[in-house]
Amino acid sequence: MPVPALDFWFEFASIYSYPAAMRIGALATASGVAVRLRPFLLGPILRAQGWDTSPFVLYPQKGRYAWRDVERICAELSLPFRRPEAFPQSGLLAARVAFLGSEQQTPWAKDFCRAVYCAEFAEGRRIDRSETIRDILLELKVDAEDILAAAQTNETKDKLRAQTAHAEQLGIFGAPTFITQDGEMFWGNDRLEGAIAWAKQAS
Amino acid sequence: MPVPALDFWFEFASIYSYPAAMRIGALATASGVAVRLRPFLLGPILRAQGWDTSPFVLYPQKGRYAWRDVERICAELSLPFRRPEAFPQSGLLAARVAFLGSEQQTPWAKDFCRAVYCAEFAEGRRIDRSETIRDILLELKVDAEDILAAAQTNETKDKLRAQTAHAEQLGIFGAPTFITQDGEMFWGNDRLEGAIAWAKQAS
Repeated sequence: MPVPALDFWFEFASIYSYPAAMRIGALATASGVAVRLRPFLLGPILRAQGWDTSPFVLYPQKGRYAWRDVERICAELSLPFRRPEAFPQSGLLAARVAFLGSEQQTPWAKDFCRAVYCAEFAEGRRIDRSETIRDILLELKVDAEDILAAAQTNETKDKLRAQTAHAEQLGIFGAPTFITQDGEMFWGNDRLEGAIAWAKQAS
Repeated sequence: MPVPALDFWFEFASIYSYPAAMRIGALATASGVAVRLRPFLLGPILRAQGWDTSPFVLYPQKGRYAWRDVERICAELSLPFRRPEAFPQSGLLAARVAFLGSEQQTPWAKDFCRAVYCAEFAEGRRIDRSETIRDILLELKVDAEDILAAAQTNETKDKLRAQTAHAEQLGIFGAPTFITQDGEMFWGNDRLEGAIAWAKQAS
């Protein structure tokens, strides 16, 4: 029987992707589900529907609620949380690195994603600065310079662009989004358990 | 010790308010939490942020997802669900009746709210038609004509308008929204359990 798999679509600027990224590994493993990282850029998708920044900036009441909601979620999970001074931060370079790592199925890709989310939402670091991404790679004891160079080739840039276009074709409108092998879509950190259960049962 | 209470803010056009309305009574009772009905109109609040109809109409990909998501939620709860042919439907008259019933703390108010949601999202009936609201009241064996007359006085209309303005002041931007006595806000059917737990602990 093939191993059930779940596609995890995420954007590094997304608040709710932080608890999802921190939880998905252990939950999926416990259910025998393989997680496939699908980093993408939410910006072009939001722009296509007329939004030039995060909805949490455009709609301040919703934004105020979301920060408090994520704070509560993290407290419940005993996850450190610190509201970043700058929001949203561009996750472009981080997404290129994550794309490269996941495409090559490297052992560091998942650790890298978690580390970026922690830097942004727990440690008050600026993930839109290349020094931070380099430092994260160095902390993971991988070849930071090689990876950064490969992440910024036209090939990787184009592939991340194509993955974002694919997200849009799939009907993805936010992050995190989970998609099972039979095409069932789940949106939001609070749908993670449901997505894993669906992936397991559908396989 | 006073009984902990939870304000349940809902709009009859709201899809996710349907499962919330069907679940809240039993869950709150099991936790010793009193539910206070707070019907309001989401339309004026959405218009104030530039939306002239449901976001599920304005953003079709999000809308497509939401219908599927609610269908799954209802299946999980063994709640009948049928996507209405007309959406969104004006819940104005129903909200006036619900306001009247909840203000007067009548025994039929909660049954009325559940019946309206079932009519709309389970039975394919048109809640934007006064005949449907009358029929629902008749099915509840209350004095439909008296209630409909009282619901359409200027006094009731003004009070519902004031309640909607109050919702906006509280920062409510969607439905269902739950607010505890210490002012903690929870948005969405999937936050109902968290809201009840918070209400219980905070009291």
